[in-house]
Amino acid sequence: MIEKTPHWLDKQATLTPNEIAIESPLIAPVTFSILRDRAQKFAKKLRFLGVQEGEHVAIHSKNSLEMIIAIHGLSYLGAVIVLLNTRLSKSELAFQLDDANARYLITTTEDQPYLEGLVNSDIVKVFSFLTVEKQPEMASDLKKELNLDDIFTIIYTSGTTGKPKGVVHTYGNHWSSAIASALNLGIDKQDKWLATLPLFHVGGFSLLMKSVIYGMPIYLLEKFEVEDIHQAIMAKGVTIVSVVSVMLDRLMEKLATKSYPEEFRCMLLGGGPASAYLLEKARKKHIPVFQTYGMTETSSQVVTLSPNEALRKIGSAGKALFTAQMKVMNDKQEANPLEIGEIFVKGPMVTKGYYQNESANQTVLRQGWLATGDLGYLDEEGFLYVVDRRKDLIISGGENVYPAEIENVLGSIDGIKEAGVVGQKDPKWGKVPVAFIIVEDKLNLDLVKQQCRELLAKYKVPKAFYIVESLPRNASNKLLRHQLVKQLDRYIKE
Amino acid sequence: MIEKTPHWLDKQATLTPNEIAIESPLIAPVTFSILRDRAQKFAKKLRFLGVQEGEHVAIHSKNSLEMIIAIHGLSYLGAVIVLLNTRLSKSELAFQLDDANARYLITTTEDQPYLEGLVNSDIVKVFSFLTVEKQPEMASDLKKELNLDDIFTIIYTSGTTGKPKGVVHTYGNHWSSAIASALNLGIDKQDKWLATLPLFHVGGFSLLMKSVIYGMPIYLLEKFEVEDIHQAIMAKGVTIVSVVSVMLDRLMEKLATKSYPEEFRCMLLGGGPASAYLLEKARKKHIPVFQTYGMTETSSQVVTLSPNEALRKIGSAGKALFTAQMKVMNDKQEANPLEIGEIFVKGPMVTKGYYQNESANQTVLRQGWLATGDLGYLDEEGFLYVVDRRKDLIISGGENVYPAEIENVLGSIDGIKEAGVVGQKDPKWGKVPVAFIIVEDKLNLDLVKQQCRELLAKYKVPKAFYIVESLPRNASNKLLRHQLVKQLDRYIKE
Repeated sequence: MIEKTPHWLDKQATLTPNEIAIESPLIAPVTFSILRDRAQKFAKKLRFLGVQEGEHVAIHSKNSLEMIIAIHGLSYLGAVIVLLNTRLSKSELAFQLDDANARYLITTTEDQPYLEGLVNSDIVKVFSFLTVEKQPEMASDLKKELNLDDIFTIIYTSGTTGKPKGVVHTYGNHWSSAIASALNLGIDKQDKWLATLPLFHVGGFSLLMKSVIYGMPIYLLEKFEVEDIHQAIMAKGVTIVSVVSVMLDRLMEKLATKSYPEEFRCMLLGGGPASAYLLEKARKKHIPVFQTYGMTETSSQVVTLSPNEALRKIGSAGKALFTAQMKVMNDKQEANPLEIGEIFVKGPMVTKGYYQNESANQTVLRQGWLATGDLGYLDEEGFLYVVDRRKDLIISGGENVYPAEIENVLGSIDGIKEAGVVGQKDPKWGKVPVAFIIVEDKLNLDLVKQQCRELLAKYKVPKAFYIVESLPRNASNKLLRHQLVKQLDRYIKE
Repeated sequence: MIEKTPHWLDKQATLTPNEIAIESPLIAPVTFSILRDRAQKFAKKLRFLGVQEGEHVAIHSKNSLEMIIAIHGLSYLGAVIVLLNTRLSKSELAFQLDDANARYLITTTEDQPYLEGLVNSDIVKVFSFLTVEKQPEMASDLKKELNLDDIFTIIYTSGTTGKPKGVVHTYGNHWSSAIASALNLGIDKQDKWLATLPLFHVGGFSLLMKSVIYGMPIYLLEKFEVEDIHQAIMAKGVTIVSVVSVMLDRLMEKLATKSYPEEFRCMLLGGGPASAYLLEKARKKHIPVFQTYGMTETSSQVVTLSPNEALRKIGSAGKALFTAQMKVMNDKQEANPLEIGEIFVKGPMVTKGYYQNESANQTVLRQGWLATGDLGYLDEEGFLYVVDRRKDLIISGGENVYPAEIENVLGSIDGIKEAGVVGQKDPKWGKVPVAFIIVEDKLNLDLVKQQCRELLAKYKVPKAFYIVESLPRNASNKLLRHQLVKQLDRYIKE
């Protein structure tokens, strides 16, 4: 259908040249026309360095204006961007660069030596943002139009089992994600979206797209710092914030007795099922929280609870966005209401596949539908409740035990700050749930066990509690249960 | 790229079943779920009457809930809707029904006998809304998804010369129009758009699309009545109104010393170039007016003046919407700034062509661009100023004379209520401009002529003034200059 659009940043710089595109604590506000000019210059410098249309260029960077300029610059060249997680190990980095056929790697000045030591310079050329900026510009036909079927980004999924897979996003995927979100949340001329999620994850990256497509400023932070975010909401006009559970919890602690300014529109809560306890807490503090569900493969949110239903359907991720569809499958049949099965989604924001990974594509993509690997159910009105990651499911004595359910209960108990639950091998039951918990000063573990027995079926009560200082989380603060499983092995061996 | 979406009304009825879709003075508000249910029932009754997927079904109706139900009902069947102007003559109706290969014609009870007398019942079956409602429902696979490349509507252009041409709109055209408009105006959860333009014109029809895509109520009026519209804005929560110049002028008279409620967002002014005089008047009354430019071929607006620029660029139609592009061509080259030429537009809202009219398509569609037949220029900042319809251009002694310019001057003169200017044959100059005017009680024509000589170059001053009771306008209140030309012939012969 729609195949080409004017280049988004170009167009926005034409429509609203003097509007703010990017705000950030330590830099002067950047308008759309300045952003366009800098991105175009960057593109011409990259061309001088040899970057051609269609080539794969990796970016390894924390959130920064330079990173955003590089991203838009690469779009002017029609190059494909491989977004690297800055927390990757050397071998993970090497794998992704190789798997994605990256020919260039752009990074910060400080990381450049480390990354140069990592790659074969005959295959991957490493440049810092600063190196690129120092080049002369090569006159070059920059893209004036974007072909929506062209590949824009490749982002690797966390991949808890097996090798990570490179999720391919076309311009059309990112476009459709931004439009579907707009139809859900509306587009308010006052909107300013906080960008604190890493831009190398799709949730953060999608904010850059929304910015140029809506003509909306983003407030950029390098990383998640409760105080900075709190200030951004209280004093910088931020109206929408994307968070995961643990971030929301800490922000609410910060809020104490105050409330957010009237202009504040909402928290978009993603990154896994949230506890009813947390949502109730937000409700009491008059914070509009909209639970969302999405993943790298869906170019960020694909299911969202609409503002009207937020209170009536607390704990639900809502319904599929306007252009998207959703179903829950059980043994190749659509599940009945309230019956748990695997969540499938479909829509123009869903990836067409993993990069050069036919076997993964065949497993996951089925006649336009994406098998998410997540478990959930629909209620009688068709609202989605995400239960857990299928691969995190604990089968104990034939019973399905969902870690998230237990974590939610533990999180609601006084004295427990955070909890992570995984399955531990057991000779009798196959597996049993055990809990890793971060506790406050005083905690009576016997009382905790007693409360668990009151709130949970017997087979769901954790058989062991491991008190830890921190829980493993990814750059978006999502809990990494597979790392807990590794820790468990250590605990048990010791 | 994006090929299929969930059926829009279905989806909206799932997302916001209890929100209002349609309000109208004489009916109870209609929610999206009620609208879906009624449209689906209507579809099943039409199926009983024999209507099949892909068949062409004409609708001949004034604005009404029944008409809207029929439109959505036909979309559930995948039938193509031919929207007929209710002001057409018998021969025009017969031509369009035949040209569009209509097999059915749905109309009001009162018009049914007249239309039955007009058509060959072996070819076109005529049903009233009521007849359809009385049929049993035939169980039928209704569309759950819309293919964006499928044809949804055929709307004939006024066609001032030659036979009218059937503009084909796909679902994708209408979708893209609604999305591009949203990116320009934003989507406010309080929005309520007034639908007083005829739904058989693309400007009115596009509001039905926006309603189901945004989840927004429309306030439906059967026709343009100043008092009703005034009330809708003052007391019914209407926030956006689409108007043409003459409607805006009359609404402002009504407003007198009051001002519109704070929630009122804007007047979208289309249907041809507006006078600076009118726009200044609106500015003084604090009415935000956004001039737009569009036509049937572009599925409504394609160029709009953004809110930020409304006052700085008064009289301009603005810039091409986010997904659209625009250029001004002069002798096969892009015109320089301020140089008048033909306006070309491009984008996903632009028709793929006229129905079964290859010669017209070849004339008008050029490598993805639509030659609009309108004359205009871009200023140094790329803002469009529409000068006139190319076919209305008067060439007088080698000079280009633009009727709209003269009409604007006449409209600013005290005592003249409306004006229409056309070219009259002249042995010396080829053509000379003459004016049709509607006047207030007292008018000193000599004074008018004197003022014209002060405000206009000599060759632009009308050589004759014809005082009339009314000016010919189409159902959207657009001035029909070709009908003035016909009147002129009569005046001269008499």
